Parts: sequence; structure tokens; C-alpha cells
Amino acid sequence: MRKLVLGIDIGATKILCGLLDWEGQVLAEERMPTNSGQEAPGDTLDRIARQTERMLLTWGVQVSDLNGIAVACPGPISYPEGVVLDSPNLGWHNLNLRQELKTRFNREVLVGKDTDLAALGEYHFGQGEKVRHLLYMTVSTGIGGGIISDGNLYRGIAGGAGEFGHMVIETGGRRCRCGRRGCLEALASGTAIAEQARELLARGPGSRLREYSLPGQSLTAREIGAAARAGEREAQQMIERTAVYLATGIANLINIFNPGKVVLGGGMLLGLQDLLLEPIWKMVRAGVFALHRESLKLEITSLGNNIGLYGCLALLKYGVKNEPVK
Amino acid sequence: MRKLVLGIDIGATKILCGLLDWEGQVLAEERMPTNSGQEAPGDTLDRIARQTERMLLTWGVQVSDLNGIAVACPGPISYPEGVVLDSPNLGWHNLNLRQELKTRFNREVLVGKDTDLAALGEYHFGQGEKVRHLLYMTVSTGIGGGIISDGNLYRGIAGGAGEFGHMVIETGGRRCRCGRRGCLEALASGTAIAEQARELLARGPGSRLREYSLPGQSLTAREIGAAARAGEREAQQMIERTAVYLATGIANLINIFNPGKVVLGGGMLLGLQDLLLEPIWKMVRAGVFALHRESLKLEITSLGNNIGLYGCLALLKYGVKNEPVK
Repeated sequence: MRKLVLGIDIGATKILCGLLDWEGQVLAEERMPTNSGQEAPGDTLDRIARQTERMLLTWGVQVSDLNGIAVACPGPISYPEGVVLDSPNLGWHNLNLRQELKTRFNREVLVGKDTDLAALGEYHFGQGEKVRHLLYMTVSTGIGGGIISDGNLYRGIAGGAGEFGHMVIETGGRRCRCGRRGCLEALASGTAIAEQARELLARGPGSRLREYSLPGQSLTAREIGAAARAGEREAQQMIERTAVYLATGIANLINIFNPGKVVLGGGMLLGLQDLLLEPIWKMVRAGVFALHRESLKLEITSLGNNIGLYGCLALLKYGVKNEPVK
Repeated sequence: MRKLVLGIDIGATKILCGLLDWEGQVLAEERMPTNSGQEAPGDTLDRIARQTERMLLTWGVQVSDLNGIAVACPGPISYPEGVVLDSPNLGWHNLNLRQELKTRFNREVLVGKDTDLAALGEYHFGQGEKVRHLLYMTVSTGIGGGIISDGNLYRGIAGGAGEFGHMVIETGGRRCRCGRRGCLEALASGTAIAEQARELLARGPGSRLREYSLPGQSLTAREIGAAARAGEREAQQMIERTAVYLATGIANLINIFNPGKVVLGGGMLLGLQDLLLEPIWKMVRAGVFALHRESLKLEITSLGNNIGLYGCLALLKYGVKNEPVK
């Protein structure tokens, strides 16, 4: 029988469930809102279980037929227990995701941090040359990352590795939701751009950026990108500054890890790649040591929004070596 | 016969050679100046070979009796070739250290970056609980580091990993010798403190720090430390600022790696540990995520100035797993 897996990618605003075969073909997808803060986590998990089982049924598949189930979820998630600790994005606190889903599906479920699994998915299913040491960075509402060291997912001692967004690159800079100042996430994430736009508009009516906002909505990185493409100087400056910060963070990581490849993803970066990628790549190459530059590739993920599903498949198919016994 | 190894730790100003037994006892040590810039690299290596063979002879040991020879050297060193590329500290360029020493000793020599081997030495011979994921950071003339991932040395794709000093933590800050601005090394190394002291004195005769300088010599981190201990406010402020920068860099690394332990070493840090360690530790603990903090130890190396020799022994005794074929 064809080997099939169920991948569940829980995001801050939406949940993506996918039925994949062992080779990485996505046979079916199901999207639903996360409704975080609007319902109890248990209700969200109930919805996930109900809707995925319905999706499976249209393919004539039972949960017991699956080769495995894996779930990607925003951190912090304790490792190896799979407990969602204190998630600012989901509003979940000390939720034993692994156990809760196991009960609902009546079988074992593997749990991973979304950015960790994205890195694992990119390593195993991404395009281009395979390198032993790979970093994945997502730039979206927040900024996070995953580390592949020697072809293996590096999770850190308790599952907290890869918090690239919480690297201070401007001591004393903008306050970050983590409590520190000048974190990359506070300077260059989608949230940071939206905040900067709001501050700019609050300073006075002169800004022409207002024209780009949707009625009744605040400006987001998407509109700032549109304004920059239309030649608005204020928006272009915001994008340029964002590129400087992202390049600084990426160059830092390259000097620290000397990876063979850095792969970028995330909604904001994918949406603004025409504006951001070239200046970032140029500054990164200029900033790192020659030894680090020579063997370096910088890429955009080819897996798009499905990177989390590929991460789930990669976790089930290839696993993670040298993991402590659970 | 007792298993013996020869370790050679090449530093910017001095070279330390040691005869160690397999269990980590240092039987003999020999120190010599590096004379970098004053003699050809080949002459320096000739001196190393001559003096270590003399040291061995006083112990009745021939080079051929040794269980191995390893050398620790400042980077950048290409990996796996062992070529010292463009060393600002040594003034060596494209020197095939492995081959050059192999010729002189007439046997194979293992080569490692000094900070990499220090991390490996700390992991295998350091005191305290052994953890799978360990970071070593040295704060001295420069700032560098080494990464132990899953009990194994992580060198990166070309041997360049661990350049913790070249992490920008203050975008647009002080110019670093690497070409970027605001690198940790440009802000918090021994060189950075000496520069700040020089600038302070140049600003006017008011500073009382002048009294702490030795006749005809510039102020170094050592004298700034003495002045801070004696209650000089300017020196105390310099130390406080240094602690903030070091804590920022260390907290960044903890958020990125989620290590079980961070070990600090290096001449400047060991010399000023009574002033620096407590504020650094306090700020680091306050800055990182709870998940990262819970499983974290922060220590000063117990191996002191011999950490490089222990690194050489560790490389010979335990090696590095999963290394590409040389």
C-alpha cells in the first residue's frame, strides 16, 4: 500500500493540514482558522482532528492506515516532551500537544517547532544542492529559524534553538516583545514594519503612505512594499532599513555557523523578495569573512507555504538522529 | 608504554607547547614568543620543532614515541586542509600549517582552530557536568568561540564556525577590523577597552585613569580593571559597558543555540572575572527565554591557560565525528 502521512502545520492565524505521500507529493490540503484567543485550545484540537479525518475519508484513508502523523507548532515547545509552554502567538500555556493529539487520533503523534521542521523539510525536500550545514530563517509576523547541523536537526538542549529573531543587533534599540531591546524581530519583522508605518503616520498628515492603506485597516508590510514599488520615498527607506537589519542578522549567523546554505522563507520575505533579496544578499556577501563567503549559498525556499508540511513528512520519514530517549 | 601526546598552542604573542599523557596530565610545558611579523613563518615553525624536540628529550621521549601531535592556531584556517589563510593576528598568509609541521616532525599533525580546540578541550576535560551542547567563548585581545553540538565539534562547512566576536550587536557602532561596524569584538574585547581608554585620555587631562598606566605604556584592560577596583568612576563605567555588551552577545548565542552550558575563558575575562562575571550572568539570565534559562549553566573555564593543550589532546584522543574524508 502507498505510504501516506498526515502533516499539521499550526500557525498564529491559520492551520494547514495536508495528506502527503512518502515521496513528498501533497495529495490533499485543508485550511482552517486558528481562532487563537477565541476558543479553548482543546476545541481547536478537536476541530483539527474532525476536519483532517473528514479530509482523509474523501481519500478513502483511515487514521490507522497512515504511516505517521506529525505536527508543526510555534514555540516555545519543550523538547522532548512536546509541551507548548507559553506561546505568545497562540495564547496556549503548558499544553501537552503531543499527548492531546495522541488522544484525539488514537495513535502516536510527533511534535516539532514550526521553524525546526521547516529547516528539516527544506534540507530533505528543498531544491538545489544538499549541504551538511543549513540555516533556515523565516521572516513573517515574527522572525525565527531552524538549524541543520551535519544533516541533522539541531534543537538545543530543551528545544529552544533557532531563535534568530531574538538576537540583539542594536543594543538599546526598539523594545521587543521578549523584553529585550534591539532584537532582529523588533526591527525587521512584519510587525516591526507595521509599527514603524503607524508611527510615521502618527507623526503628521504629510505622509503619502496613508493612500496605500485599506479602508479601516492599518498599513502592513504588504502595503509598504506596494508603496515602495510605486516610488514612495518613505516606504523605500523603510524597506532599505529592513534590508540592512536582515542582512546584519544573517551575516552574524553566517559568521557564527559557517553554513553551506542559508534559506529564507516566511510570508513577509516571500512577499517582498523583489525588494529585499538583492540588497540583503549584497550586504551579506560584503559583511562576512572570505572563508565563509566562498562556500555560501543564499536561497529562497522553493517549498513556499507548504514548507511546514514537508517538515512534518521529513520528521516522520528521516527522523532526528541522536535524540535522547523520550 | 605510557601514551603521550604533543600539543602546540600558537597564540598571537606566545606559543605554548606541552607534553601530556592520555589522561590529561601536563608533564612538561615550553613557552616561546611568537615573534609574528618579525620572522618568516617557516622560521617560527623551525623554532617550534627544535624546542619541542629538546623538551621531549629531557623526558627521554622521541617524536616517534608520541601517540600524536596536534596544533591549535588562530583562524581563519581552512578546513579540512589545515591552511592558515589570512591571519591578522599572526601575519601568516596561506600557510599550509599541517603540511609544514608534518615535514618538520616527520609525522602526521592534526590542526585545529584555537577556539574550536578550546571548546573540545573544555567538553572532554573541563570540570562540572557534561552537557551535549556547549559553547565556549574566549574574551582576550579578540573575541572568538567554539561550538560543541551533540558532543561533537561543529566546525562549519569550511572551518569558519564560532566567530562569536564578529556578531554585530550595535548596528552602525564602532568600526571592527573585519570591516563591519558594531561587532562584539569591536565593543568588548581587550583591544576595544584599550581603545576606549586611549580615546578618553585623548579627550583631556581630566581623567585620573592616567595614573594607572605604566610608564611609557598605554592603558590596557588590566589597568582599567585595577582602576575600577580602586573606585575610579570612568573605569567602572567602561567595565559596566563591557559587561552589557558581553551579556548581550552571550544572550544572543543562548537564544540561538539553547546550549546546556556556556563556558567563558580568555585572558581578559579571566583577569577581570571578579568585575565582569556577576553582572554578565545576571543580565544573561534576565535576557534569555525561560526555556533557555532553565537548563543553562554559565561557567569560567577550569583549564586556564592550558585549555589549548587540552584541546590538542582531545582532538587526538576523541577526534571529531562525521568529518569529511581529507
